[in-house]
Amino acid sequence: RGEGQHDLLWSLMADYRPEDKETIQKDIVRHVEYTLARTRLNFSNMHAFQATAHSLRDRLVERFNDTHTLFADLDVRRVYYVSLEFLVGRSLRNAISNMGLSRPYSQALAELGYQLEALYDEEKDAALGNGGLGRLAACFMDSLATLNLPAWGYGLRYTYGMFEQVIHKGEQVEVPDNWLVQGNPWEIERLDVQFSVSFYGHVETTSGSDGRIKSEWIPGDRVLAVAYDTPIPGHNTRNTLNIRLWESRTDKEFDMESFNRGDYMGAVRARQASENLTNVLYPNDNTYSGKELRLKQEYFLVAATLADIIRRFKRSQLELSKLHTKVTIQLNDTHPALGIVELMRILVDEEDMEWDEAWGVVRQVYNYTNHTVLPEALEKWPVTLLEVLLPRHMQIIYQINLLFLREVETKWPGNLSTLSEMSIIEEGYDKRVRMAHLAIVGSKYVNGVAALHTEILKSKVFRQFHELWPEKIQNKTNGVTPRRWVDQANPGLSALLTQLVGSDAWVDDFSLVAKIKAHADNPETQVAWNEVKMQNKMRLAAFVEKEMGITIDPTMLFDVQVKRIHEYKRQLLNILGCIHRFHRLSEMDDDELAACIPRCVFMSGKAAPGYFLAKRIIKLIHEVAHVINNDPRISKYLKVIFLPNYNVRLAELIIPASDISQHISTAGTEASGTSNMKFVMNGGLIVGTLDGANVEIVEEAGEDMMFIFGLKADEVDAARHVSFGPTRQHSGDFRFQSVLASIEQGCFGPAQEYQAILNSLRGHNDRYCLAHDFPDFLSAIRKAEKLFTNKSEWARRSILATGSMGKFSSDNTISQYAKEIWHVEPVALDNAEEE
Amino acid sequence: RGEGQHDLLWSLMADYRPEDKETIQKDIVRHVEYTLARTRLNFSNMHAFQATAHSLRDRLVERFNDTHTLFADLDVRRVYYVSLEFLVGRSLRNAISNMGLSRPYSQALAELGYQLEALYDEEKDAALGNGGLGRLAACFMDSLATLNLPAWGYGLRYTYGMFEQVIHKGEQVEVPDNWLVQGNPWEIERLDVQFSVSFYGHVETTSGSDGRIKSEWIPGDRVLAVAYDTPIPGHNTRNTLNIRLWESRTDKEFDMESFNRGDYMGAVRARQASENLTNVLYPNDNTYSGKELRLKQEYFLVAATLADIIRRFKRSQLELSKLHTKVTIQLNDTHPALGIVELMRILVDEEDMEWDEAWGVVRQVYNYTNHTVLPEALEKWPVTLLEVLLPRHMQIIYQINLLFLREVETKWPGNLSTLSEMSIIEEGYDKRVRMAHLAIVGSKYVNGVAALHTEILKSKVFRQFHELWPEKIQNKTNGVTPRRWVDQANPGLSALLTQLVGSDAWVDDFSLVAKIKAHADNPETQVAWNEVKMQNKMRLAAFVEKEMGITIDPTMLFDVQVKRIHEYKRQLLNILGCIHRFHRLSEMDDDELAACIPRCVFMSGKAAPGYFLAKRIIKLIHEVAHVINNDPRISKYLKVIFLPNYNVRLAELIIPASDISQHISTAGTEASGTSNMKFVMNGGLIVGTLDGANVEIVEEAGEDMMFIFGLKADEVDAARHVSFGPTRQHSGDFRFQSVLASIEQGCFGPAQEYQAILNSLRGHNDRYCLAHDFPDFLSAIRKAEKLFTNKSEWARRSILATGSMGKFSSDNTISQYAKEIWHVEPVALDNAEEE
Repeated sequence: RGEGQHDLLWSLMADYRPEDKETIQKDIVRHVEYTLARTRLNFSNMHAFQATAHSLRDRLVERFNDTHTLFADLDVRRVYYVSLEFLVGRSLRNAISNMGLSRPYSQALAELGYQLEALYDEEKDAALGNGGLGRLAACFMDSLATLNLPAWGYGLRYTYGMFEQVIHKGEQVEVPDNWLVQGNPWEIERLDVQFSVSFYGHVETTSGSDGRIKSEWIPGDRVLAVAYDTPIPGHNTRNTLNIRLWESRTDKEFDMESFNRGDYMGAVRARQASENLTNVLYPNDNTYSGKELRLKQEYFLVAATLADIIRRFKRSQLELSKLHTKVTIQLNDTHPALGIVELMRILVDEEDMEWDEAWGVVRQVYNYTNHTVLPEALEKWPVTLLEVLLPRHMQIIYQINLLFLREVETKWPGNLSTLSEMSIIEEGYDKRVRMAHLAIVGSKYVNGVAALHTEILKSKVFRQFHELWPEKIQNKTNGVTPRRWVDQANPGLSALLTQLVGSDAWVDDFSLVAKIKAHADNPETQVAWNEVKMQNKMRLAAFVEKEMGITIDPTMLFDVQVKRIHEYKRQLLNILGCIHRFHRLSEMDDDELAACIPRCVFMSGKAAPGYFLAKRIIKLIHEVAHVINNDPRISKYLKVIFLPNYNVRLAELIIPASDISQHISTAGTEASGTSNMKFVMNGGLIVGTLDGANVEIVEEAGEDMMFIFGLKADEVDAARHVSFGPTRQHSGDFRFQSVLASIEQGCFGPAQEYQAILNSLRGHNDRYCLAHDFPDFLSAIRKAEKLFTNKSEWARRSILATGSMGKFSSDNTISQYAKEIWHVEPVALDNAEEE
Repeated sequence: RGEGQHDLLWSLMADYRPEDKETIQKDIVRHVEYTLARTRLNFSNMHAFQATAHSLRDRLVERFNDTHTLFADLDVRRVYYVSLEFLVGRSLRNAISNMGLSRPYSQALAELGYQLEALYDEEKDAALGNGGLGRLAACFMDSLATLNLPAWGYGLRYTYGMFEQVIHKGEQVEVPDNWLVQGNPWEIERLDVQFSVSFYGHVETTSGSDGRIKSEWIPGDRVLAVAYDTPIPGHNTRNTLNIRLWESRTDKEFDMESFNRGDYMGAVRARQASENLTNVLYPNDNTYSGKELRLKQEYFLVAATLADIIRRFKRSQLELSKLHTKVTIQLNDTHPALGIVELMRILVDEEDMEWDEAWGVVRQVYNYTNHTVLPEALEKWPVTLLEVLLPRHMQIIYQINLLFLREVETKWPGNLSTLSEMSIIEEGYDKRVRMAHLAIVGSKYVNGVAALHTEILKSKVFRQFHELWPEKIQNKTNGVTPRRWVDQANPGLSALLTQLVGSDAWVDDFSLVAKIKAHADNPETQVAWNEVKMQNKMRLAAFVEKEMGITIDPTMLFDVQVKRIHEYKRQLLNILGCIHRFHRLSEMDDDELAACIPRCVFMSGKAAPGYFLAKRIIKLIHEVAHVINNDPRISKYLKVIFLPNYNVRLAELIIPASDISQHISTAGTEASGTSNMKFVMNGGLIVGTLDGANVEIVEEAGEDMMFIFGLKADEVDAARHVSFGPTRQHSGDFRFQSVLASIEQGCFGPAQEYQAILNSLRGHNDRYCLAHDFPDFLSAIRKAEKLFTNKSEWARRSILATGSMGKFSSDNTISQYAKEIWHVEPVALDNAEEE
């Protein structure tokens, strides 16, 4: 492999770092001394974490480079997962565990005087996502690596990730999440991978000598995209994938042309401020912001990503008309849907491909995952904004739409309302581009993220598209990675599963957990199972004691609802239920109280900063918690704990400790949920509606394993149309009204604080049908409490539930994507290279 | 040295990296592979530079940590050099050379397939300074390290250093200098060294139980200062000092209190933009900007620095009343003079010291270097601005002034005009704080930077202060480091000096160059001397050919003027002289021309972006150059080359190549000049006025070694008062007028382009006496041209001149500071630790 003058260099690079304890120790110490430049006099656990991470990074880099060299050598077909969000969380434990280095690392550190477990807590979360959509992308990358699939992730490197939620007097305060402040040992800055991304300007049209009309975009502004690579190690393989995150920088070349003379200081500061496109993640979940900066972020991501993909493809020496044979791109929601248009622009304007041929390629390249059916979450960008920001793209969208509508016209001749409903352009005073329609038209496959969700897409939201192209819409039920969410987050359960399954093979083949069902009736297993849960509950209780100063009895029923605060997710239903329970307990005498099942309700989640009502709900939760927790009599039987700043780290602590968890969205509103899978994998039972992935969990585990209540998806519309006056006609249940009345009477602080909440629940305003589902919800909780007294039966159901979760490993989901959508094959590094 | 649980860690840290070729190779390769994560497939000279720098950094870190551990163990008295600017330039060559690793590194790299010399050019300049003041600070740090003195530098880590000057159609365009874009291998981020710096707010006054009035500053805003350490290796010693640069970050704690709810996205972006205090260096040289952001930068520097110094001092277990026994602080110009006030605030408000005792300590701690006598360069901050930004400091300044004026009153009773002239507060409609007065009053010693400059301080600018405190004002003539400016920048001369001196001891003891004088008459030495110069001229000519496409005959007289563009530095005099010479040459017939000495005038320098006239001068230089260089007949005898973007890297290329250099400021305006020393050290002769350090260079070398012309400092005032009408009465010399006339006639483009320049030269407007000095300037150039024909005599004078420069090593300057101002002693690491 020599190249003459650099022979020695290559030969010195040929070795791998040994992975024995002694070498690891030396490497850690070298990083302490040189990379961190510490002396023994100024050296903390934080530095030990950083040095450990750097020593691991060295080994990641070897596998990462080998993997990409292998993909390049074999010129494999690759899948590109493009997502505005990757909610990775912390990486040290995951990397050590996936790379199989837990034992040498924990020994190496112990001898140096450090506990590996303690170092995990020094790491800051990489919180480059809002919630489910971003966390799914992270789980998928873990599965892609573990399954040896040739894949890349593409996203943005936000300087400020998801804001930190601080609770001040019961209200959410958003604090910027400066997550890079301690440095990020996991990323590799790729200064040689830079692309210029254009904005604004105008389009010039010329006729070529062949009579063909050629369009050229003359941009008005440019910024640079610089790549940061994040190695993603697979489990039980040397394959290590890449999430390539783009950071925006000022484009010096462009500065030279446009820089104002005179006020240099002002100009340089203004420029830096305005151009920092990747400064901050938009903290909106299931809402569409409509802000120009957001649109710039979206285009910035796809423009840099496509430039990179095409550069890589061109190394294949194939014609661009063969692009779809080597490249398949998955759009995670419509955020990167402009990529469809950008690829058309590149092929037609830059590569001189004929429109029809280009369009044929594009529609083979893209696939689109829909994540929501909520109207307020569907992106619709104003045409006027696109015309200014991306003038050429707007032209291309019009052209795509024209040709598409001809297809519709052919299928349904003369049907103007169908044309108007399906059009990519929403007509009206303020014309908008329906990004979901663009994504469907420009993609080969479209998928929903749970069976029910996909059915709703086919039958309601995208009904006409489904009729036009019956093969296009597929279902791919979400999954989660059992590495992070069971093996790493719940070591006690992991050990027990390994014992019950007979090996740790379940970590990579989660269908094997079905084997534990055979032990569900075994009393010894039940005791061991309950003991694992108790340890996790004690761990959570200790955390709450330390962070919040509240003592919790771990024998209470731990009832958890953790997710973004949103009306449709109905945290309100939960807290109203708590108020009702509090009233009921307050009426009891001591004997009655003593017969009650003590329950501790944990809630956690962030509200979008501009979502007024969600922030009011947080306030109400805190005031209710304050009243209940400070009632000396009641608080032994009911507690409400709001854990601030929900993130991946907290999830890893909370989920293994839940007895029951609530997934109680109004049926038909939650696409998947996905965290429901994590809870059940960890032995928790679900209190939930038949919504999102709950439906399939119930299918797998059996309905009597769960506490299901409420309207079904096909009943909601009808229920919404039933008029509920303030006197509550339905089912004669006045409990809901009395709870609202207690809020209105000021039991939880001045009533005007909650006026918006109360209004949202009255009559027709009650869009999410809380009034209807309330009695049924109370019964479901009551059932769970009752069952909880029977420890043996509880353990039995919990074991059976966990044992039914094989389907929900993201490995399973990804295998389906790979077979049915992407058509990519595994390519594994030889494990022998380790020698 | 064990500490129980961490014994193994410490023992593994005890080793040093070997410095042999093989280990260096392994280290470079390790950094290629792991730190940079490159494969053989994507690896360039830039990466080789970075890996080499990282391997060197490892070794720097060892010495750096040892040095600071030694200082701490011995609890030595330290000098703190506080400067808003450190113009370090590139570091790789300097570090390798100072550490004595040139040989193993160049061999190691050669075997790996890389040329060390080629890698030097991959490095970006650290351009954290405008010009002389900042470069002096960098030379001083090199000498402090080499002299084993216990010292620290403190400054700011600007994200954007000195702007890059791009010439577009003859005009300067400023392009932001994003110097960190490739990463900075020389810095160590110190996330554990953070201080909060306050601004705005108000002062609360309370009476203590002891009746004492206590003031407390309640800030309105806070930002964090985070330390970045830059190791500075000494030459021929293991001692390695630190320039600690502060970067501003948002203060999360403060965010929590102040963050607006609602518009989170807007708030986070605005906050990042507004708080980035250290974003950009002010590109002003010898002018005062008066901008709030600049004042914030100044206070930010001193507040963080003092917090760090006091934290370190407290480890001594001494009372703060003994601070001055361990700490001496040098203020590099008045930019950090608020440190005097900040230290008073800390001692009185925070440490409860009595005012008088605190003031006694402060006046023992500080010393102040004045760098200019230009009125427009003296900082005078509006009282109204200080009252808002630093309310408590303004109170303290008033109190300092009150007590100071009592002292003045005692010395000169009843003299109101003296009180008003000396007051720290300049009275008037818009009251201002005279920072120079504050610095003098609060310092133990004040110094000028050249003999003449110090005399002007004593006799004019600070006359009354000198009368009040005759011991306070000292002279410390600037110096430059012979390591960078001779040994590294001019390897040919370095080898010759070593041969002539008999050893390379001159690198650390530059007085030894006097030995070369004995060889001045030796023809062989003369030839060798001239050959070195010719090689350097050819190197420069090759650079100009490559970068600008202009071919230069290296046998021409290379006449160089490189420095900031400023009226007082009189680049205008130079270019007017070129115009005159062009006219004269144009009038000659071919025979006359053939007898002329071909001269190539090199100019380079940046104009402050807001300095209109200076930017017009750049335009004029380019238009004159365009006309002259494109005249096929004349351009063989005269060329004008403006090298864009003057910086340390260019200086290292240009200075060794000069035959003569121009230092032609109006006498009494340039404090030192300092680059004059570099030119003469490299064998260049000076065309100059008796200004700044020229005076002492002439003293050392003898007047006939140089081409001195023009008014003397004590003649300038009188000359300015002579009225020169447009008819030019003086000395009957009409050459100046005819040059102006040719500009006015449009010989160099439309005359209106130069109206401001022409106005500035007419009659009383001619503040810098160009008209007066013009004839004399032309004669001086003529003399130089004539002498240049005599290669032997030229070499003789050049050798004698260089041999006379012993005084101007910054080692010499620093030794004087150490003895006469700082009272610090050398403390050297044992060289045996290398073993």
